Amino acid sequence: MTEPTSKFPIRRYRRGKVEELQDLVAVEEPLEIRIAGEPFQVLMRLPGYEKELALGFLHTEGIIAGLSEVITLHFCGTATDPVLAPNVVDVQLTDAARARVGRRHLEVAYSGCGLCAKEAVSEISQKVPPVKSELTIGAEALLALMARLEESQPVYRDTGGTHAVALATPDGETFLQAEDVGRHNAMDKVIGRALLEKRNLGALVALLSGRLSFEMALKCVRAGIPILAAVSAPTTMALELARELHLTTVGFAREGRLNIYTHPRRIIS
Amino acid sequence: MTEPTSKFPIRRYRRGKVEELQDLVAVEEPLEIRIAGEPFQVLMRLPGYEKELALGFLHTEGIIAGLSEVITLHFCGTATDPVLAPNVVDVQLTDAARARVGRRHLEVAYSGCGLCAKEAVSEISQKVPPVKSELTIGAEALLALMARLEESQPVYRDTGGTHAVALATPDGETFLQAEDVGRHNAMDKVIGRALLEKRNLGALVALLSGRLSFEMALKCVRAGIPILAAVSAPTTMALELARELHLTTVGFAREGRLNIYTHPRRIIS
Repeated sequence: MTEPTSKFPIRRYRRGKVEELQDLVAVEEPLEIRIAGEPFQVLMRLPGYEKELALGFLHTEGIIAGLSEVITLHFCGTATDPVLAPNVVDVQLTDAARARVGRRHLEVAYSGCGLCAKEAVSEISQKVPPVKSELTIGAEALLALMARLEESQPVYRDTGGTHAVALATPDGETFLQAEDVGRHNAMDKVIGRALLEKRNLGALVALLSGRLSFEMALKCVRAGIPILAAVSAPTTMALELARELHLTTVGFAREGRLNIYTHPRRIIS
Repeated sequence: MTEPTSKFPIRRYRRGKVEELQDLVAVEEPLEIRIAGEPFQVLMRLPGYEKELALGFLHTEGIIAGLSEVITLHFCGTATDPVLAPNVVDVQLTDAARARVGRRHLEVAYSGCGLCAKEAVSEISQKVPPVKSELTIGAEALLALMARLEESQPVYRDTGGTHAVALATPDGETFLQAEDVGRHNAMDKVIGRALLEKRNLGALVALLSGRLSFEMALKCVRAGIPILAAVSAPTTMALELARELHLTTVGFAREGRLNIYTHPRRIIS
């Protein structure tokens, strides 16, 4: 198992003075996801939670509807394993899920004539069902969860090099959290974790340390997560998708304030 | 031409009080790059600098060695153009460049048996030449350029939703700058701009508002940019690549200090 941080010799300059020291840096490694032995996707990621990442990725890309479509899931990062190379996850899927491989959401969305955000969103809306959950959360409870997200980022604290995503119940009793060098991976890791723990994703709020882009919103919608709150800004395309598919989006959730962009009924003030 | 920001109605919560207002949000739209009419890649990006983005992307993916391999480059974002759909760039390449399409760098790198960062880096090092430029910059001059990057982010100032990248000469006389919802796009846009202006990339320093990951480092190396400085943290794989291919990397360049990770000879303190 590879560690998530690594020491690196650096030269630090500060106001005319230079010192040599060892600094901790976030580890980035490729992970190959194979479906029945066939290469499917390579992700650049922070080591750790590999099964979760593969599972969450397959779910939020629309390949698997849930854990029940996964027959086996193997990962081995040790050199002593004779079967799988390091940094490879191999997944066996049911026939129904295998039939979805190759028909990825973006290719489908962009095959439309218009190739504009509005048409892409409207095409996706015809294929992906809207989020049904009637979950609500108080604005102050949401800000408390965001503060907790900030505190629970050990790799970020050591390196400054990672994003964090958490999935939590409004009371904070459930709080699944993951870090990664990529925001998408951090989201997929916690969604994969929730699937493994057989959590009801419709009862969870997603919390992001970064920005709220189209692909992050789509991952939540596909997973059935009703509320997505970010420390930073959203993009227009994320908001158009959220509006269309009934996802509540919240941005700039920090320092006692937050902006609600879409479906505000789920945020109680 | 699509604007880079758009108004969106929001509900703002702040310490128990709620107000309704219009907020500016960064626009995210797909851009399809076609090679001789054939779809090659869809990028999610901030509108603007489309030709630059396509050109920079093709260069940093190792498809074109420079502008001389581009025969024509068309973009039309207006509804009145009868030839190209909106959000499409169509490029005609020389035979030499066309022969490289399909042999993308990551697929090549990951086809190795090991699939670990070290082996991927070592494979790339056998294919991509190291950065040759002997450019140097003073630490204080570099910090001054970083401060200028922070000031020159109009979309970020309005929306909080973008990253910025600049390419500059050490004296700041040349300062090409671009913003995007994605860091990779911002880098490709300024590199594309430098190609269009026939700049010597070996004489420019790259400045990033975000993190320094493997792919950002690889883009600089492929473009022949010798120095890459970021406001935030690097990853291990970026540094391994930089060490191998003679790229000077600088992180946490802000508030009067910076960390030099690889090839420190180019930073004069």
